[in-house]
Amino acid sequence: MTYALAIHGGAGDLPILSSRDEREEYAQSLSAALDIGRGLLQQGGRSLDAVEAVIRALEDDPKFNAGRGSTLNYAGQHELDASIMDGRTGSCGAVAAIRSVRHPISAARGVLEESPHILLSGQGADDFAKEMGLELVEDGFFRTQRCVDTWQRALGRAQAAEKDVEKDHFVTVGCVALDEDENLAAGTSTGGMLLKRHGRIGDSPLIGAGTFADNRTCAVSCTGIGERFIESCIAFDVSALMRYRAWTLDQSVQHIFEHTLPDRSGGLIAVGHDGSLALRFNTRGMYRGAANSKSVCREGQCGWARPK
Amino acid sequence: MTYALAIHGGAGDLPILSSRDEREEYAQSLSAALDIGRGLLQQGGRSLDAVEAVIRALEDDPKFNAGRGSTLNYAGQHELDASIMDGRTGSCGAVAAIRSVRHPISAARGVLEESPHILLSGQGADDFAKEMGLELVEDGFFRTQRCVDTWQRALGRAQAAEKDVEKDHFVTVGCVALDEDENLAAGTSTGGMLLKRHGRIGDSPLIGAGTFADNRTCAVSCTGIGERFIESCIAFDVSALMRYRAWTLDQSVQHIFEHTLPDRSGGLIAVGHDGSLALRFNTRGMYRGAANSKSVCREGQCGWARPK
Repeated sequence: MTYALAIHGGAGDLPILSSRDEREEYAQSLSAALDIGRGLLQQGGRSLDAVEAVIRALEDDPKFNAGRGSTLNYAGQHELDASIMDGRTGSCGAVAAIRSVRHPISAARGVLEESPHILLSGQGADDFAKEMGLELVEDGFFRTQRCVDTWQRALGRAQAAEKDVEKDHFVTVGCVALDEDENLAAGTSTGGMLLKRHGRIGDSPLIGAGTFADNRTCAVSCTGIGERFIESCIAFDVSALMRYRAWTLDQSVQHIFEHTLPDRSGGLIAVGHDGSLALRFNTRGMYRGAANSKSVCREGQCGWARPK
Repeated sequence: MTYALAIHGGAGDLPILSSRDEREEYAQSLSAALDIGRGLLQQGGRSLDAVEAVIRALEDDPKFNAGRGSTLNYAGQHELDASIMDGRTGSCGAVAAIRSVRHPISAARGVLEESPHILLSGQGADDFAKEMGLELVEDGFFRTQRCVDTWQRALGRAQAAEKDVEKDHFVTVGCVALDEDENLAAGTSTGGMLLKRHGRIGDSPLIGAGTFADNRTCAVSCTGIGERFIESCIAFDVSALMRYRAWTLDQSVQHIFEHTLPDRSGGLIAVGHDGSLALRFNTRGMYRGAANSKSVCREGQCGWARPK
């Protein structure tokens, strides 16, 4: 085993994909993104580069709630969040409520590489991305008919004070990787929660909440109701359990799902410093896939499967 | 011992206070803030209320970098950050890059009480505070002559590419408390780093980085170079060491200063579930004070004292 990686395309309770064809399309997208990461890592590429490349592909795919195709906030706007962390150095970068960058994960990488800061928000994040020379797009680029339809339905129900089942559907994307130099990296990107308040920041751009990587322990990317991951620092907690209790990745993740994370909150993917993998969720499903140099598990193909 | 609390008014390397009179003024302000918290806790008040009341007083005091008197960002604007957490319930609230609220800590408390979200940023945070009916102020309210003078000097040096010593001075404020019902709370409020990029979010509004509270372990508030506290989730890490290694508060804090936090990064205050207190820093000084039902330690009076 010389490398390992895992990806997620969000977790949720609602099997909104009515047709088999649609499920197959998601599986193919996840499979293609997984292969981008495998290709880079097989050639000896860095985990940080693999994480960024995989997430860029998922951001470009309008099926996922990240980059193009992101959900709309209550005001009908896009505000995108992303973060990335290098487990070798502990360096990290993140952007929150960014609005004009095609690939928020690359803006986060830019913050990691070029800024003394870790988290830039709002117009400050957009201005930084522009200075970095990243590809900028108009708001219309992110907007798909499906996003608009979903937003309008949800808004109608919210205004009628009906329970909004579509809010239980969180299609954040993320990737964690271990490369052949034994360096870990993690990244997460999202359009955030449907109908979120403008300016709301979820767990995805927060180091220790939605994303964490430390070569001594593991790399983690989360998806779900962001607030449940923020208040318990879920990504960091996986790492803390491994460090302080000398537990395996699997034991640490299991503990968090049994004792910390409320039911139906979401899921996470993680890779340990030893190449162990964990993909776990307490919603009805989580789009996911994983691979190492020995095998590939395209679990995304099982769509909204029950956790084992 | 029926209650315990600690406060900080920031940590830094620079003894910028030239006169004994100035040092005495800081000591008096800290002492008065400490007494507000003591008064509430002595009467059986809640730790969450004590934390908010103490921080409101420090926000109103123009000597501290929080609320009125906050430092200016590179663009010469105020962007304020605050967070608060209830150790009993794990509920928390935070605002980042807020610009129009007299007491950012009360906006954070509003998010905790009234919002399904945890972290609101930018205009979204200001709009929320307005809806909550919190006291709004014009930008001029926060601006003191001292802030403007400091900003102009720092900007001049930055533009001349000189090392900016005043950036080593971080006067965030914070409070942690244990009440007689054995409930913990923590809060932090700041104007952020002098000359920070607009939109930069530091550790103060990030749960687990600058603020954390959990009745099982401790309540923590940090101050210093925010990025060093974000990348290692310092506030949560104190709690994790206590939970997972069954260490005392003092052992946990000591470990972090010896093994995790880089030298000259800042400091933290913490109170354990058993009423133990820790006030530690690796800068030249930290404004601070602490008290419990048996004694009062107005360490703020020693000004920029060396850590023991």
